[in-house]
Amino acid sequence: MTFQIGIGPNIRKSVYFDAVTADGVSSFSVYNHMLIPAHFGDPQAEYDSLMTGVAMWDVAAQRQVEISGPDAAQLIQYLTTRDVSKTKIGQGRYVPICNHDGILINDPVLLKLASDQFWLSIADSDIELWASAIAAERGLDVQVFEPDVSPLAIQGPKAEALVSDLFGPKVKEFRYFGFEQTELQGIPLILARSGWSKQGGFELYLQDGSCGVELWNIVKAAGAAYGIRPGAPNDIERLESGLVSYGADGRIQANPCNPFEISLGKLVDFDKADDFVGREALLKIKKEGVKRRRVGYVISGAPIQACQHSLEVRDALGQIVGILSDFVYSPRFSRNIGVGMIAMEVEDDASDLVILLGGAPRQITIAEQPFNF
Amino acid sequence: MTFQIGIGPNIRKSVYFDAVTADGVSSFSVYNHMLIPAHFGDPQAEYDSLMTGVAMWDVAAQRQVEISGPDAAQLIQYLTTRDVSKTKIGQGRYVPICNHDGILINDPVLLKLASDQFWLSIADSDIELWASAIAAERGLDVQVFEPDVSPLAIQGPKAEALVSDLFGPKVKEFRYFGFEQTELQGIPLILARSGWSKQGGFELYLQDGSCGVELWNIVKAAGAAYGIRPGAPNDIERLESGLVSYGADGRIQANPCNPFEISLGKLVDFDKADDFVGREALLKIKKEGVKRRRVGYVISGAPIQACQHSLEVRDALGQIVGILSDFVYSPRFSRNIGVGMIAMEVEDDASDLVILLGGAPRQITIAEQPFNF
Repeated sequence: MTFQIGIGPNIRKSVYFDAVTADGVSSFSVYNHMLIPAHFGDPQAEYDSLMTGVAMWDVAAQRQVEISGPDAAQLIQYLTTRDVSKTKIGQGRYVPICNHDGILINDPVLLKLASDQFWLSIADSDIELWASAIAAERGLDVQVFEPDVSPLAIQGPKAEALVSDLFGPKVKEFRYFGFEQTELQGIPLILARSGWSKQGGFELYLQDGSCGVELWNIVKAAGAAYGIRPGAPNDIERLESGLVSYGADGRIQANPCNPFEISLGKLVDFDKADDFVGREALLKIKKEGVKRRRVGYVISGAPIQACQHSLEVRDALGQIVGILSDFVYSPRFSRNIGVGMIAMEVEDDASDLVILLGGAPRQITIAEQPFNF
Repeated sequence: MTFQIGIGPNIRKSVYFDAVTADGVSSFSVYNHMLIPAHFGDPQAEYDSLMTGVAMWDVAAQRQVEISGPDAAQLIQYLTTRDVSKTKIGQGRYVPICNHDGILINDPVLLKLASDQFWLSIADSDIELWASAIAAERGLDVQVFEPDVSPLAIQGPKAEALVSDLFGPKVKEFRYFGFEQTELQGIPLILARSGWSKQGGFELYLQDGSCGVELWNIVKAAGAAYGIRPGAPNDIERLESGLVSYGADGRIQANPCNPFEISLGKLVDFDKADDFVGREALLKIKKEGVKRRRVGYVISGAPIQACQHSLEVRDALGQIVGILSDFVYSPRFSRNIGVGMIAMEVEDDASDLVILLGGAPRQITIAEQPFNF
């Protein structure tokens, strides 16, 4: 079954909307109250371009929450579980954010633009609302707002060559999550080595929404030599690579996760000098011991359709012992794979686990993450 | 141009999903990270059933934020601009919610279930995140969470007769926003006289997500005698009736509005005994005078396609003096109508206003709200 999407003023269009529609986008999703392309009609070709060539994605819906002002660094330390006090200007950091109960509510990349200016490049939840409430209640001297910034991702093994053509060979020196303020044909943007895939690449954080179509077309024209294709954040690749997808793998309202169980425990710095939201709850969770762990899964049987919603994982007694959050048929591994959670007491080699898919049971086994077949 | 919607685990399915797909839903939107039907393929018939018969809508995406515990009443007073201290158990109230800057961030209906238990039946923003941050920072003894509650709306002039068939004649005594804990064939729900239309009706706040399809089918079967149709919150009717649509008419990140300019000033109770979020900012805004006001619009020319995004309103000098947030061709009034904002200095009878629609200018005039032709 396929369904249309109702496009109305309640969901924002990205600054690249006219470009992606001109280039044949077929399907959208919604992320941070904004349309985001889901695919352009040929998912296989889009996957191939990411894996062997270069792909360009409208990821403007990965919105920025800017925190700036005299108390900005203090607020950032309080909002995130990591110690980012040593982060340098021009560095990015992957920073889990938990609520006061220690539940993950977002997993943004933090960009430090100045000693008193930061961006949280967020996953799909209203962190601006949340962060501004905390700032105000604590009486901090900061501004919390959404700047005019719209990322465009260039991903794949040929991304570096293309970005080098556009910005010069210096881009080869960029470290992962490193970024720099620059411009392209007069268009202001921040260039970062980042992106939601493990195939390498860059993100262009466009800083002038009126230039969206122009920027898209510059990248497209320069990318033609590398066979660039428009695409979208790729669920097959992210499952193969084991990336976390906040919202799909868990959300505060559906399968709420703490960082320890979702494999982000290393990014909780209890030793940092500053207090942070959720610290007390996370200490308690850690002390009591987590009840489940993040795992990869392999699902038996014929290739499966892409996942529409999570499924319960049951043992031989019919008890729910885990959740399969997301799954797909993997071309790279030639089998059905997924990610999710399993109860701590279930062994890695459990052979009695089943899911119910389309009314029929399928055997499901636990696999190491990242997958290594 | 029409586009598909990508259905994946990042966007939740409503508990009515299998029922609405069985009944032929064609198009979805996304609201509070959940799929919500947009239409079932015959918008004209859906409009007609709302205006002259009865319609049923899956509005499960109108999520509840429950606030309960010893300090619940205190927190509710602090979160909302209205004085709801006199609200009785079983009463609902339309309560604007502003951030600390006095900007509207949601406009839920508040349901008081007990002296220490409330629901905020929210529009499309993450109020659970925001409210729980404030509760924790203030050290209040409350729980803030999303309960298992999924509203189903029954709207239209024949709604009362149908709901009376289902629940007995007592429902005729319900006042607007009045509600009662009850059940239907053993299914627990709260029945309220409410809904996002001016055609009258009820909402069934289902309290057991496993019974979604069953409840849908009970209502559908009982409604057959009245020619019930599945539909969705209707943008034509809401524009004709002048209802506010948070998200479409304004959102914190796009056309942020304060309550005074969006016609909700009467619901800001500066005299209430308790402090509330945004009070100081709102006093300042009121003192300085608002710069624009909410108006209806009439757009000249041939019937227009439904709005995909807001448009700027310009005067004869080409200056932006307002915004047309949403618009549609109105069958009731046989003209193109819309809502939006206009600068205070523009007269009600200004005749030089224009919008640019599909590349062509159209004259646009201000009309009283609610429309009265």
